[in-house]
Amino acid sequence: MDVFSREDNSNTLRVLVATDCHLGYMEKDEVRRHDSFLAFEEICKIADEKQVDLVLLGGDLFHENKPSRTTLVKAIEILRRHCLNDRPVQFQVVSDQTVNFANLFGHVNYEDPHFNIGLPVFSIHGNHDDPAGVDNLSAIDILSACNLVNYFGKMILEGSGVGQITLYPILMKKGSTNVALYGLGNIRDERLNRMFQTPHAVQWMRPEVQEGCEVSDWFNILVLHQNRVKTNPKNAINEHFLPRFLDFIVWGHEHECLVDPQEVPGMGFHITQPGSSVATSLIDGESKPKHVLLLEIKGNQYRPTKIPLTSVRPFEYTEIVLKEETDIDPNDQNSILEHLDKVVSNLIDKSRRNATSRSELKLPLVRVKVDYSGFMTINPQRFGQKYVGKVANPQDILIFSKASKKGRNESVISDAERLRPEELNQQNIEALVAESNLKMEILPVNDLDVALHNFVNKDDKMAFYTCVQHNIQETRSKLAKDTDGAKFEEDDLILKVGECLEARKLYKFYNLYTDRVGIVKLSMMFSLCFCE
Amino acid sequence: MDVFSREDNSNTLRVLVATDCHLGYMEKDEVRRHDSFLAFEEICKIADEKQVDLVLLGGDLFHENKPSRTTLVKAIEILRRHCLNDRPVQFQVVSDQTVNFANLFGHVNYEDPHFNIGLPVFSIHGNHDDPAGVDNLSAIDILSACNLVNYFGKMILEGSGVGQITLYPILMKKGSTNVALYGLGNIRDERLNRMFQTPHAVQWMRPEVQEGCEVSDWFNILVLHQNRVKTNPKNAINEHFLPRFLDFIVWGHEHECLVDPQEVPGMGFHITQPGSSVATSLIDGESKPKHVLLLEIKGNQYRPTKIPLTSVRPFEYTEIVLKEETDIDPNDQNSILEHLDKVVSNLIDKSRRNATSRSELKLPLVRVKVDYSGFMTINPQRFGQKYVGKVANPQDILIFSKASKKGRNESVISDAERLRPEELNQQNIEALVAESNLKMEILPVNDLDVALHNFVNKDDKMAFYTCVQHNIQETRSKLAKDTDGAKFEEDDLILKVGECLEARKLYKFYNLYTDRVGIVKLSMMFSLCFCE
Repeated sequence: MDVFSREDNSNTLRVLVATDCHLGYMEKDEVRRHDSFLAFEEICKIADEKQVDLVLLGGDLFHENKPSRTTLVKAIEILRRHCLNDRPVQFQVVSDQTVNFANLFGHVNYEDPHFNIGLPVFSIHGNHDDPAGVDNLSAIDILSACNLVNYFGKMILEGSGVGQITLYPILMKKGSTNVALYGLGNIRDERLNRMFQTPHAVQWMRPEVQEGCEVSDWFNILVLHQNRVKTNPKNAINEHFLPRFLDFIVWGHEHECLVDPQEVPGMGFHITQPGSSVATSLIDGESKPKHVLLLEIKGNQYRPTKIPLTSVRPFEYTEIVLKEETDIDPNDQNSILEHLDKVVSNLIDKSRRNATSRSELKLPLVRVKVDYSGFMTINPQRFGQKYVGKVANPQDILIFSKASKKGRNESVISDAERLRPEELNQQNIEALVAESNLKMEILPVNDLDVALHNFVNKDDKMAFYTCVQHNIQETRSKLAKDTDGAKFEEDDLILKVGECLEARKLYKFYNLYTDRVGIVKLSMMFSLCFCE
Repeated sequence: MDVFSREDNSNTLRVLVATDCHLGYMEKDEVRRHDSFLAFEEICKIADEKQVDLVLLGGDLFHENKPSRTTLVKAIEILRRHCLNDRPVQFQVVSDQTVNFANLFGHVNYEDPHFNIGLPVFSIHGNHDDPAGVDNLSAIDILSACNLVNYFGKMILEGSGVGQITLYPILMKKGSTNVALYGLGNIRDERLNRMFQTPHAVQWMRPEVQEGCEVSDWFNILVLHQNRVKTNPKNAINEHFLPRFLDFIVWGHEHECLVDPQEVPGMGFHITQPGSSVATSLIDGESKPKHVLLLEIKGNQYRPTKIPLTSVRPFEYTEIVLKEETDIDPNDQNSILEHLDKVVSNLIDKSRRNATSRSELKLPLVRVKVDYSGFMTINPQRFGQKYVGKVANPQDILIFSKASKKGRNESVISDAERLRPEELNQQNIEALVAESNLKMEILPVNDLDVALHNFVNKDDKMAFYTCVQHNIQETRSKLAKDTDGAKFEEDDLILKVGECLEARKLYKFYNLYTDRVGIVKLSMMFSLCFCE
C-alpha cells in the first residue's frame, strides 16, 4: 500500500479495467438504443481523466458477432475521439509484438508512426464477438485494422483431439515495473474445461529471466472471458485450474459487478469481476451498481480503486411471492393488479430517490419477479402499457415463476443461470420443437441449437453440415465400441440410417441454409401459399 | 496541352480516377475471392507511384451493402497501407468542410492532426454501398469514421413530392488551380430522372466569385453513379440533364471501361467512364481491358492519361450462332460439344497469348454466348467440369440465348441491359412468382422485388410494410380520382380489399420478415415437416 503513497507515476502502470460493454445492445429500441454507447463513452472519459496508461477490456466489446454499420461507426467514433491525442504513452511493449498482435501490421497501436495514439486500448474477444468465418475474424479485428484497439488473446488451436493452446504474454515495462499480460479470448467452456484437465494442453509462456533478475519481477495478469458460476462445473472454468504464478485475474463474461478483487484461497492470486457496463438481462445481479476498476501496479504490488459508472440507466429489481402478500385475494385479479402496481410504483420512486445528477433524467429499468404459485398469471405486456414513458422496459416489467421444490434461494440461483445474457435474445430450437410437437429422434436439439446460432450469428455456412457429420460420426464410433469391433447387421442399419439422414434430410438443410435470400424467398412463398 | 509541358506540379492538381471496385465481390469463391482486392490494391499502388494529390472514386467501393468482416478488414488494411505516409498533401479544401463531409468530425481527413494522411481518397456511394437503415449509413461511413476515406455526395432529400437536393462542391485549391468537385451519390434512377425534369429540384451551389476573379476560374467536376445507357430513358440519366457550367464528368456505375473522355456535343463538358476494376458480370463490355484515369488539371485545362490495370483477371468473351457453324450436325449433340470445346480452347489460348507478366498466372474468365436457335441447349455445369483448373468460372462458361425478332445486334444490347451487374447475383421475385405459378393480383411484382431487396440487403425492416402502404395509398387515390370525388360502393369495396390485404396477408409478411432468425427457424420447421 505504502509504495503508492508517493506521487510518483514513473514506475506505476495505471490500467483502467472494464468488460462486457456490449456495444449495440438494444440498438433498435427507441429508449435504450444509446445505453451501451453512453457507458463505453463514460469508461473512455474516466480513462482520459485518470490519465491511465492503458485501458484493458475483458471481451464482448460488441454485442453482435456481426455488428451493424451504426454500431461499428459509433464504436470507431468513440475510440477515435478518446484514443487519439498528444499524450505520450509511457510504457513499452518488450515482447514479440508480431506474436502478441496477430494483424497485418503486427505491432502495438501507439508505435505506428502515422497515428497519434495517446490512450492504448487492449482487448480480448468474448463469446459475442468471437472470431468466426473462413478467415476467423472477430469484429474487434476491424478495430484492430483501423489501429484503434490492440486485439490480443486470439488463440491458435494446435494439435488434434482436445488440442493445445499457448499463451504468449504481452510484456510491458514502465520504469521499474514489469507486467506480463496474458489474454485468453473466449473458448467454449466445455472445451476449455477439458483442455485445462488435459496435461500440457494449455501452455503458459513465461518471460525470460534476465541476468540479476528473478521471474518474480514480473507482475502476471490474466484476462479471460468464461463462465465462472460453479453450479455446472463442466460448463464453467474453475478458478483452481489457473496457474499459481498468476498475480491478478480479470474475469470477463459474468455481468454481475464484483469489482473488488477477491482472493482465491490457496492460489495466491486475486480476481476482479468488473461486470458488464450495460444490463443485458434483467436479473438481480445486473441491478447492482456498475463499476470499473482503476488498477495501479508498482513492482509486485497493486492498488485497486473502484470507480462507479454514473451514466448507466437505473435498474430496480425485486422479487415477490404472491401467496405471502396479505392484501391479495386469489379470486380477485384486481387485487393482484393493484398489488403489483404498488410494487412497481415503489420501485420507480426508489429509482428517483437514488438518482444521481446524470442518470436521473433516464427512465429506469424495472423488473419484478413474481412467484405466482397458487395464482393465475397476468399478461405482462398489457400490465406494462400504463408504464410507457415511465419505465424503460414497459413490455417486460413482470416475470412469472413458480417456486421450485428445492426452496426459494436455490431456485433463484438456477434462474439466474438459465437467464445468462447470451440466451435471452432469441428463442431456441428447444422451444420451437416443444411448441410444434416435432419429434427430433436423431439430431440432438442442443446441437441443432448451436448450429442454428452459428449459422445465423456467425455466418458459419457449414454449421448444419458439421452438426450432422459430428452426430453421424459419434453414432458410428459409439456403435463400433458397443459391438467391440465385430460387425453386426445392426451396424449396417445404423450406417444406413445415418446415410439416409445425411442424403435426404440434411442435404436439404444445407442447401436451404446456405442462402439467406433463398430463405426469405422460401418463407415468402410459404406464406403466400398459406394466404391463398 | 502545352500548359502541362513544363515540369511544374505546384499548380497542377493530379487526380487518380477509378470506380466500381466492388470490394468483396465473389469473396466466397475459391478462385476469384481476391480479385476485387488485388485490383483495388493496384489502383492504390498506381496512386502512390504517380504521386497524385488525391484518389477519386465513383461509388460501389463495396459490393455488398453490409460488407463482411473480412471485406471490411481487407479494405481498411489496403487503405491504411497506402493512405498513411509522410508525403505532404499539397492542396487545400477551402469550402465549408462540415457541409462537404457529413461525419462526426466534419473535416477532410488529412487535416486531422492525429493521422498522417499522405494520400487522401474521396468517394461517393454507389447503388451497392448506398446509405440505408435508421441512421442512413453507408459502409463507406465506416471508412470515413476511421478517417481513411473522405465520403461526400450523400444527399439530404428536402421538401415533399419529388423532393429537392442541393449539391455543395468541395472547393480545392492547388497553387493557381481551383477545382470545384461536385459529388452525387447514387439515387434511384427513376427518382433522379424525375428530379432533373422538375424545375429547381436539383440545386447546384456555385463558388462565390472572388474579387478580381470570375466564376470560370473554377474547373467544375461532377462525379455520379447512375445508369447511362439510353435504351430505357426513364431508368437512366440523360447527359443533357446536367448543367453546362460543368467541365468534366466522372461517370460511375457503368462497368464497361470507356475511360477516354468523350465530348458531349452542345454541352461543353467531357465524360470519362472508367468502368469497374473487377468484372461482376460476364458480358462483352466487361471483357475489354480495364483502366483507370490520371487526370491532371491546371487552370481551366486538363490532361487525361489512361493507365491499364495489369492485375485484373483475363476475361475472354465471344458469341456464336450454332446454325451458322458448318461443322455442327443438329442431330448430333457430340458435334455441338466438340465445336464448343474448340471455341473455349481457342479463348483459353488467346488469353495465354495476351497474358502480361502479372496476370499470366491467373486462370482466365471465359464466356461464350451461344445462340442456339434451332438446336437444343446443353447443361453448362456439366460442360464446364473439364475446365476446372483451366478457367476461373467453369460453372458458367456457356450462356444460351435465342436471336430476338429485332435481329442480332439489338438483341445483344438488350441482353447487356438485362444483365446489369446488380441484377445478376440473385433471383428476383418475378422469377419465383413465375416458377411457382403464383397469382399476384394486388401487389405489383416489381414493388415486391424492390421491397425484398431492401429488406435483405439493406436491413430495411419496414420494406414490406412500406410497399403495401404505398400500394394501398395509390389504389385509394386512383379510385378517388376516377370517381371524381363522389363516393361509390366500389370505393368502399376497394378500401375493404386494401384493409383486408393489410390486415391479413401483409401483417403476416411484416411479422415474418422483421426477424431473420424467425425466418431461418420457420424454414427449418417447414423443411422438417416436409422430411417427415
